[in-house]
Amino acid sequence: MGKVKVGIVGLGRLGRQHAENLAFRIPNCELLAVCSVIQDEVEQVQKEWDVKYAYTDYDEMLKNKELDAIFIASPSGFHCEQIEKALHAGFHVFSEKPLGLYLEEAVRVQEVVNNHPDKVFMIGFMRRYDRSYVYAKKKIEQGKIGDPVLVRCYGLDPAKAINGFMQFAKNNYSGGLFLDMAIHDLDLARWYLNAEAKQVWAIGGAYAYPEIAQLNDAETGAALVKFENNKMGIFVAGRNCAHGYHIETEIIGTKGTLRIGTTPDKNMVSVFDDNGVVKECSDGFLERFEQAYLSEAEEFISCIRENRQPSVTVEDGVLSTALGYACKESFETGELISVQSPYKTKPLSI
Amino acid sequence: MGKVKVGIVGLGRLGRQHAENLAFRIPNCELLAVCSVIQDEVEQVQKEWDVKYAYTDYDEMLKNKELDAIFIASPSGFHCEQIEKALHAGFHVFSEKPLGLYLEEAVRVQEVVNNHPDKVFMIGFMRRYDRSYVYAKKKIEQGKIGDPVLVRCYGLDPAKAINGFMQFAKNNYSGGLFLDMAIHDLDLARWYLNAEAKQVWAIGGAYAYPEIAQLNDAETGAALVKFENNKMGIFVAGRNCAHGYHIETEIIGTKGTLRIGTTPDKNMVSVFDDNGVVKECSDGFLERFEQAYLSEAEEFISCIRENRQPSVTVEDGVLSTALGYACKESFETGELISVQSPYKTKPLSI
Amino acid sequence: MGKVKVGIVGLGRLGRQHAENLAFRIPNCELLAVCSVIQDEVEQVQKEWDVKYAYTDYDEMLKNKELDAIFIASPSGFHCEQIEKALHAGFHVFSEKPLGLYLEEAVRVQEVVNNHPDKVFMIGFMRRYDRSYVYAKKKIEQGKIGDPVLVRCYGLDPAKAINGFMQFAKNNYSGGLFLDMAIHDLDLARWYLNAEAKQVWAIGGAYAYPEIAQLNDAETGAALVKFENNKMGIFVAGRNCAHGYHIETEIIGTKGTLRIGTTPDKNMVSVFDDNGVVKECSDGFLERFEQAYLSEAEEFISCIRENRQPSVTVEDGVLSTALGYACKESFETGELISVQSPYKTKPLSI
Amino acid sequence: MGKVKVGIVGLGRLGRQHAENLAFRIPNCELLAVCSVIQDEVEQVQKEWDVKYAYTDYDEMLKNKELDAIFIASPSGFHCEQIEKALHAGFHVFSEKPLGLYLEEAVRVQEVVNNHPDKVFMIGFMRRYDRSYVYAKKKIEQGKIGDPVLVRCYGLDPAKAINGFMQFAKNNYSGGLFLDMAIHDLDLARWYLNAEAKQVWAIGGAYAYPEIAQLNDAETGAALVKFENNKMGIFVAGRNCAHGYHIETEIIGTKGTLRIGTTPDKNMVSVFDDNGVVKECSDGFLERFEQAYLSEAEEFISCIRENRQPSVTVEDGVLSTALGYACKESFETGELISVQSPYKTKPLSI
Repeated sequence: MGKVKVGIVGLGRLGRQHAENLAFRIPNCELLAVCSVIQDEVEQVQKEWDVKYAYTDYDEMLKNKELDAIFIASPSGFHCEQIEKALHAGFHVFSEKPLGLYLEEAVRVQEVVNNHPDKVFMIGFMRRYDRSYVYAKKKIEQGKIGDPVLVRCYGLDPAKAINGFMQFAKNNYSGGLFLDMAIHDLDLARWYLNAEAKQVWAIGGAYAYPEIAQLNDAETGAALVKFENNKMGIFVAGRNCAHGYHIETEIIGTKGTLRIGTTPDKNMVSVFDDNGVVKECSDGFLERFEQAYLSEAEEFISCIRENRQPSVTVEDGVLSTALGYACKESFETGELISVQSPYKTKPLSI
Repeated sequence: MGKVKVGIVGLGRLGRQHAENLAFRIPNCELLAVCSVIQDEVEQVQKEWDVKYAYTDYDEMLKNKELDAIFIASPSGFHCEQIEKALHAGFHVFSEKPLGLYLEEAVRVQEVVNNHPDKVFMIGFMRRYDRSYVYAKKKIEQGKIGDPVLVRCYGLDPAKAINGFMQFAKNNYSGGLFLDMAIHDLDLARWYLNAEAKQVWAIGGAYAYPEIAQLNDAETGAALVKFENNKMGIFVAGRNCAHGYHIETEIIGTKGTLRIGTTPDKNMVSVFDDNGVVKECSDGFLERFEQAYLSEAEEFISCIRENRQPSVTVEDGVLSTALGYACKESFETGELISVQSPYKTKPLSI
Repeated sequence: MGKVKVGIVGLGRLGRQHAENLAFRIPNCELLAVCSVIQDEVEQVQKEWDVKYAYTDYDEMLKNKELDAIFIASPSGFHCEQIEKALHAGFHVFSEKPLGLYLEEAVRVQEVVNNHPDKVFMIGFMRRYDRSYVYAKKKIEQGKIGDPVLVRCYGLDPAKAINGFMQFAKNNYSGGLFLDMAIHDLDLARWYLNAEAKQVWAIGGAYAYPEIAQLNDAETGAALVKFENNKMGIFVAGRNCAHGYHIETEIIGTKGTLRIGTTPDKNMVSVFDDNGVVKECSDGFLERFEQAYLSEAEEFISCIRENRQPSVTVEDGVLSTALGYACKESFETGELISVQSPYKTKPLSI
Repeated sequence: MGKVKVGIVGLGRLGRQHAENLAFRIPNCELLAVCSVIQDEVEQVQKEWDVKYAYTDYDEMLKNKELDAIFIASPSGFHCEQIEKALHAGFHVFSEKPLGLYLEEAVRVQEVVNNHPDKVFMIGFMRRYDRSYVYAKKKIEQGKIGDPVLVRCYGLDPAKAINGFMQFAKNNYSGGLFLDMAIHDLDLARWYLNAEAKQVWAIGGAYAYPEIAQLNDAETGAALVKFENNKMGIFVAGRNCAHGYHIETEIIGTKGTLRIGTTPDKNMVSVFDDNGVVKECSDGFLERFEQAYLSEAEEFISCIRENRQPSVTVEDGVLSTALGYACKESFETGELISVQSPYKTKPLSI
């Protein structure tokens, strides 16, 4: 098989980065089409990178049979519908997280994905492709820390992005702190613990920005999750991190502990000045996860060429979403919540 | 006033360290008497350090009116009774934590303490006197991190001490993981957040040592606590820490974050070898808190000489114990627990 | 202009990495030809990556006028001749460091480069394109550390590679510790200090591997260099680093200090185990400088497309080589050596 | 033997700290007398700490036969004379570094010390008693890093102290950067390498404070030293360290490396704020070496009580001074200097 021909929908900040990667940095891949409802965006990208096709209508792009795969980086509210359409139209599909903003639609997408076993489907849990996260997983599999019993995750957005978030959140439903932001961490905890969540208690507040409380959301929050076999998950999510974009994950096992990103170093430079010894911090996801975004796209293209499925599955998307919902419900009600199976009867694929 | 003359009861590992400090390293202090039910221990210390009086009977020591103060480092179950007797006998009193193993006796001790306002009473929450902890408190008071909204505490005992613990716990009631071990952290969270706990959910398990479950205790556990004003506390306690004695405390505020002891470095040496770059770890509380044990004793002696009370109060002992009980109850029942006021009607002193 | 068509010569460990980058990860670049004297190597790469042309004869490749640029990654002894031939044949040229193994040939290459001002020439001092090194340079230019007065560089190869080196060195002239290994650091010091070297004293020895002394080389060595304006350079080079590939650079200025790579972390994972807290280390240049190799190639291609020269020049190659020679001479003679201008009369281009 | 009775001369910043330690924190020690030419200083200390005897005349103090030992913390220029007088008067002697400001007097002091073998003599190389330095020495003795081949030492005074230094240096002979400041590091290198220096080249300059050049001194300087067996020493000394008091020591061996104080952390607190992750730094020797000053005094008292000599000897003082002189001469002449034996014929005691 020759180069995999990809069309991307969504050219926002992350979408544009994905598009640039697909155009220039992914072996055996060709960015053949770009799509966005914003005409200027599409024209600019088409011209700048010399992309063959450009669309402002997603359905039109799906009619282009030169394409092999669709890469979805549109706003979260569109993911489910666009995934389903692309699969029905016969394309391999990569979708950014979250699978959907509502659990029901996520379950429905899983059905559609399961009905197209010959098509590669991948959800954008890019952290699973970050080298440090992969390295930690390998250490665990090698037994280096014994049996993992507790995962602690920090997912903190930089304070300087908070005004932008509030502007967005006033007019859009983001899913809230736990479902929108903590979703990567919930997935990671399931992955590292190799267990599903049973109960959750989530708390939080709006401390510096009371208007966040008016959105029924939290500026900073914490959730404690009991997983199968008494395993534990601790999740801190926030939108007001003074020092930058702080993503830290710890796995405590019976024989050792792993920490990924104890401090969110921007690079390998230490600055010694009258403040002391300063490690400057990562300022956002594009900087921190540059390699992971590349590697997940490489894996998606490789799966298509090698006719196999990625290790991260649609079910990971559904179950992480279910846990995110339980966190959200606990935060909103103040109650201890039992995590419900998202499936009416039993899991579709396990 | 001349040197403060002190008698100590309890010459175990920590007691002996306290005794040595009082004998040699605390300005304006004289170790005049030692007491232990183990005759050999008493004789050895008396001889080695040339201590004037030695007792195997605590009540006998209390009859010695050359003494100004009693330093209690006996097993936890004796604290309450010994505090009360010493105060009644007219001495200043320092007692190791915990105040007591049962909430009722802790409340009763508080009454006795409050009835002796002319006597200095101090509870051994030594971390409040550790330089790094003091420094963090000062930073917070200076507004460096804005309003503190979340405290995360790790209190992990070294794995190599776990067999000793199990031997002890089979024959003694320790109070359990949250009440015995996490008590320092519960106090610190109250101190840094300047708020009292309202609700707690605690989980945990016995992963490598199932016999700990038979003691109704946890090998490693986690508690999430909601404090006043939606402030948050996360507590991880454990007895099976592979790398050593890991005491880490983090305070997240609206404008910044402080971490104390991110890694529990043994000293300032880094070892570069075929493992990589290795920071060896602290192996126990005597090593990690050497300075704090000295400073709290210095403060106790200074309070006596300067006729004032220390900033850590008997009420800190009672309220931390109440929170520890709530954690324990939550862990044992699996329920979300509201923290009850330990006082029948209202706090005695606030 | 369309894609820049590149032919590469040399498919060893680094050459192969360069080739893969040029083939797949560099925007606006096409790997059109590969060349190596080892036929199997050429055939394998041509087949695996679907490269249009393959050569075992460098002169044959230079006849291919579809090519725009030649990328030289052959053994050091061939660099000078291949650079000259490629420039004479009308190609843009990238050459791996060092410019040459002898100072005279490096000076001669500079003349040829200067005689082809319309052709892009770039020397592979990739560290200048590493993000952390670039960041440090920017900080200096912003005045963050005042006037740089001392640069300290560690360039230590992993101990596990030493047997391979000795095998190679017995049959080949490598240039020795200072000219072969320290050359990157010598260039960096000139770059950060913005000054040329005046005097050097270099010492060292063969401590664990006496056979290195028989090669007139050092296992580990140190050089102290006096630069213009009394600025200072400290260089430690070695081939026997137990913990891995240790590249560390420090710039001390009148108002602050920068360190790049204080510890040569492999990734963002910390391992807490019974050794303590362990940061595993980078195991070689391909791992440590992956991004830099990509970025320098991107810059080379961009220079060609934008008709400009890179900021690292052939003169940097010549002057760093001259300093490397002075280090080597000092080490061999034990004397304090004045660094001679490599130019008979005066610098060709400054 | 009962408590060792000590008289101290010199009540400056460090002297006062020593006096306080001797008075309150050293087991089996009694501060019986204080002496300073500044009457107010003496009276204040006598009163505050209830010291039995106070002198403004050193010779008078030496007549006090209640004393067992003399602790010398006076300005450097007085050390030699005061050591000799105290030994002749029959006292054990502790002297702050340096042994003397001139090599000849240091050699003469050694003779006097050697003529009083029954008296304990100790020179204040306190770093040898710092726990981290002791730990590193132990690791080396255990073979952990193989054979030590290179020691790198940074000894940097905080920039905020530079004005005080210049005020002092205009009116006093300090010995200069290498002899006054680097002396601790020169001693440490000899200790860790277990070898004596053979050749040195030292350079430096006055970059931000040109008036330091007028004092024939350097603001920041570097020395490269060749030790016996081709072992290497790198020394950076300075008076203008923006981030604080930076004492860092590294020992590279054939099988591993040790670093002590890679960053000069003030305490265990990390501050996360909009600068990034900040470790504040030690602000001076009293903070950094608090424990070492205590431990060396404890060792001095123990040596007296146990009738033995400390492991750091007067010869360490002489040989470190000789190396300091060679650095100074190299810096002043610009030449490569051979380190001369300070002894006319041969070492007195080896």
